[in-house]
Amino acid sequence: MERHGQVVRITPGMRERYLELHAAVWPEVEATLSTHHVTNYTIFIHGELLFAYYEYVGADHDADMARIAADPVTQEWWTHTDPCQTPVEAPPGTPPGTPWSEMTEAWHLA
Amino acid sequence: MERHGQVVRITPGMRERYLELHAAVWPEVEATLSTHHVTNYTIFIHGELLFAYYEYVGADHDADMARIAADPVTQEWWTHTDPCQTPVEAPPGTPPGTPWSEMTEAWHLA
Repeated sequence: MERHGQVVRITPGMRERYLELHAAVWPEVEATLSTHHVTNYTIFIHGELLFAYYEYVGADHDADMARIAADPVTQEWWTHTDPCQTPVEAPPGTPPGTPWSEMTEAWHLA
Repeated sequence: MERHGQVVRITPGMRERYLELHAAVWPEVEATLSTHHVTNYTIFIHGELLFAYYEYVGADHDADMARIAADPVTQEWWTHTDPCQTPVEAPPGTPPGTPWSEMTEAWHLA
């Protein structure tokens, strides 16, 4: 099992919209995550920061992430969520992609 | 089961010290957490941000946190970690206490 942590900023003015969307995430979006071995997924909010934690229980994280990104309903969902999210840092020349930054594990207690 | 998310900043210049400490967390500190119903605890790092995720499987979170805070070895451990951590925000008049800010859950997928 892999544990993943990610961080992103809320775009100024989009906090309420983000919470509204996540109070009713589309069932197809959740099903696509589950089908591709994503489990125990939680998003936390504090001020302008969002933090995501999930566990990946499949055999090829990158391949499953690519399949999730290829799902048309998920793509439509992201047209709603992407405007709410701004990368914590985006150096000049950063290619387009997910606004979330992957965090590195510093310690784990089972 | 309760899921908890917390965020804190690394004090400038203390990143390496923080990682060094967490590469070898004292066994007594880990045992005290486990005894008091804290499980699946992970700390992630990204730039100057630290994010903690843990699950609480007891019946009284506040009481167990108070017992952990009363443990002498944990208190000594915190004399090493506290200088590494700065609250993400500390408005004037904030009482002393843990530097970590509790985050609010925005969404969860089982």
